[in-house]
Amino acid sequence: TVNQDRLWDSLMEMAKIGPGIAGGNCRLALSDFDREGRDLFVRWCQEAGCSITVDKMGNIFARRPGTDPSMAPVTTGSHLDTQPTGGKFDGVFGVLAGLEVIRTLNDHGVETTAPVEVSVWTNEEGSRFAPAMVASGVFAGVFDLDYGHSRADIDGKTIGDELERIGYKGDETPGEHPIRAFFEAHIEQGPILEAEEKTIGVVTGAQGQRWFEATLTGSESHAGTTPMNRRKDALVAASKLVTAINEIALANAPHAVTTVGMMQVSPNSRNTIPGSVFMTIDLRHPDDATLSRMEEELRSACAGICDPVGIAAELENIWYSPPISFDPDCVSAVKNAAGTAGYGNMDIISGAGHDACYISRVAPTAMIFVPCEDGVSHNEAESATPQDLAAGCNVLLHAMLERASA
Amino acid sequence: TVNQDRLWDSLMEMAKIGPGIAGGNCRLALSDFDREGRDLFVRWCQEAGCSITVDKMGNIFARRPGTDPSMAPVTTGSHLDTQPTGGKFDGVFGVLAGLEVIRTLNDHGVETTAPVEVSVWTNEEGSRFAPAMVASGVFAGVFDLDYGHSRADIDGKTIGDELERIGYKGDETPGEHPIRAFFEAHIEQGPILEAEEKTIGVVTGAQGQRWFEATLTGSESHAGTTPMNRRKDALVAASKLVTAINEIALANAPHAVTTVGMMQVSPNSRNTIPGSVFMTIDLRHPDDATLSRMEEELRSACAGICDPVGIAAELENIWYSPPISFDPDCVSAVKNAAGTAGYGNMDIISGAGHDACYISRVAPTAMIFVPCEDGVSHNEAESATPQDLAAGCNVLLHAMLERASA
Ligand SMILES: NC(=O)NCCC(=O)O
Ligand SMILES: NC(=O)NCCC(=O)O
Repeated sequence: TVNQDRLWDSLMEMAKIGPGIAGGNCRLALSDFDREGRDLFVRWCQEAGCSITVDKMGNIFARRPGTDPSMAPVTTGSHLDTQPTGGKFDGVFGVLAGLEVIRTLNDHGVETTAPVEVSVWTNEEGSRFAPAMVASGVFAGVFDLDYGHSRADIDGKTIGDELERIGYKGDETPGEHPIRAFFEAHIEQGPILEAEEKTIGVVTGAQGQRWFEATLTGSESHAGTTPMNRRKDALVAASKLVTAINEIALANAPHAVTTVGMMQVSPNSRNTIPGSVFMTIDLRHPDDATLSRMEEELRSACAGICDPVGIAAELENIWYSPPISFDPDCVSAVKNAAGTAGYGNMDIISGAGHDACYISRVAPTAMIFVPCEDGVSHNEAESATPQDLAAGCNVLLHAMLERASA
Repeated sequence: TVNQDRLWDSLMEMAKIGPGIAGGNCRLALSDFDREGRDLFVRWCQEAGCSITVDKMGNIFARRPGTDPSMAPVTTGSHLDTQPTGGKFDGVFGVLAGLEVIRTLNDHGVETTAPVEVSVWTNEEGSRFAPAMVASGVFAGVFDLDYGHSRADIDGKTIGDELERIGYKGDETPGEHPIRAFFEAHIEQGPILEAEEKTIGVVTGAQGQRWFEATLTGSESHAGTTPMNRRKDALVAASKLVTAINEIALANAPHAVTTVGMMQVSPNSRNTIPGSVFMTIDLRHPDDATLSRMEEELRSACAGICDPVGIAAELENIWYSPPISFDPDCVSAVKNAAGTAGYGNMDIISGAGHDACYISRVAPTAMIFVPCEDGVSHNEAESATPQDLAAGCNVLLHAMLERASA
């Protein structure tokens, strides 16, 4: 079994990099803090005897050799980037759980047939650069390298330039890196395991998501002198659209979730009627047909709100991540490991996207969830217990060992 | 009569400072561009033989002496700051019309009994620093100097520090500057004169306004994993409030106008449920009792939206500018001047606040409006004709002359 204290201490050490303002982290993808976090991870892996490779999307692979050099590695991993007001566990747990697996194998002098690998994927969060999981997406061939490099943040800085700047644009071509099986450990980020009092979620798949960007354009005018019937107020229209988007989730209960996370008002002046509003829209559902219907509902709500009042609306679907099912053998490996260790467990579908979703297109894949307090994530208050995290790490160790023997 | 071309050329020259992106101006209060605009104005006034004084709020006075040194000046003026996407005429016209009056008096060697003065008031727009008209408010004793100096922009920079930085924190104590009568020429910024085909608006008063800041606080959480019934989405609540605020105007038709001009979403990340939203609210009505009732409607809408869903709402009334009536004698001077010159004119109430509103508390005051195209202002497309502007300037000249004789 893994070393619970060592895993916890490493998590707390990493959390010192890019501290938030309320006990969590702000370690945005490809920021200086992201570089520091990567450097620390690489140093720890080298100290554990691993060799390091980095691909052109900045994905990092730390390898512990197996006895059969011809075999592809059994790989685990997740991401080190966080939300602007993120927690200490989202992503980081999956990376440091992988490191703890390697340290445990070293402690006990265990030799595996296949190499064992820990990976760090660039810009999983999709917060600084949209879409989410873009670098595992390039790895899996869903996006091409140019697309990956050209994603820009709100200031126009691109992933390609920022990778160069922080020194993590590697040589390897993304995807030219065979993987025998992939496992990702992660906090659930939702309330189900806690409510069901289970320690381990055996993740069988993930719901689909569609991300949109909308720009509503009305007309700037004076807040004091423009009669109500002469206004084209982009924020009034945007606000009705936010309400309609919320209602789309309620109309597709119980599984639909919809969110407007980002909104920029222009010119954003107290006494000028807003001339334009940019907003992002995130629609999710486990069923693909329902998700498509939700998109139609969004499009008709947008037209219904904007057209009659002369607001021009551009609505672009910038990302589609279909619902996915993980590999049955890998899922079984997780379930067996949880059962053997005696952890209470249940099957679960992920509400969030994860790098494992894209890796599942090119390698047999599964995920392991552990509970987090109140199901809260993407919040600095995100919390998980050392015991649950160690349990997830133990399941990871044994699932990987099962797949790393010939 | 004034020199139409010279007035127009001066307006176009000033508009080169702080150009916008669509033909208008971005010359925010106390920015480097504001300094450049002030410097140009001061130079022009000195070339016209005026003496300059500046007060501690950065208000500038350019004086042309009269024959009776014991008399207080007849003063005109407005502001040089603009909205982030402002026009070439809002404020600037009133300042340069004043300069054109002085140049015209010089051309014809006219001596006045009282001195004639042109003033520039700091931060009239209220866009970079709230509230609007803050420096004429300090001049009129509505705000104290500390309040004026401590107003901060969104980056925390204060009026006091920015005045110091651009070299316009003068020595004079605001208000210790007697004014015999005050006239402000301005574009209407609304559609009424154009619709009624009148060249001159004889402004009899201004409607009241109440400005608010609201902060709604919910709870950040993951957009994919947080069930709809566990969300405290600050943006969903804020959006309902925007809609309710719009409805308050419609419920108090025909004269009420309400605007949410500014909104900041936090953490503003695509896949995080917004934890908090800051927004500004601008309510206006010519009748004070109705304006108060609109505030009550706002407060109850805010509580009705936020309380049931556990969103904490702070709603602060940061500014109240009551409806005002201008001085009957000054209003008559404007009406007479317009009539004598044969300009079509009508009485009108200002929908916008103006420095004249505060100056009217300490000196007999009136205003002169000229039409602007489609009534559009606070928009780079703001437009007015050289003829109408010269007409307004002529009315200003003759109203000032009437009040500058013993
Ligand atoms: N796990 C996680 O928070 N991923 C970010 C992408 C998403 O919003 O699902
Ligand atoms: N004239 C003008 O636009 N003033 C700004 C203050 C207001 O919004 O009324």
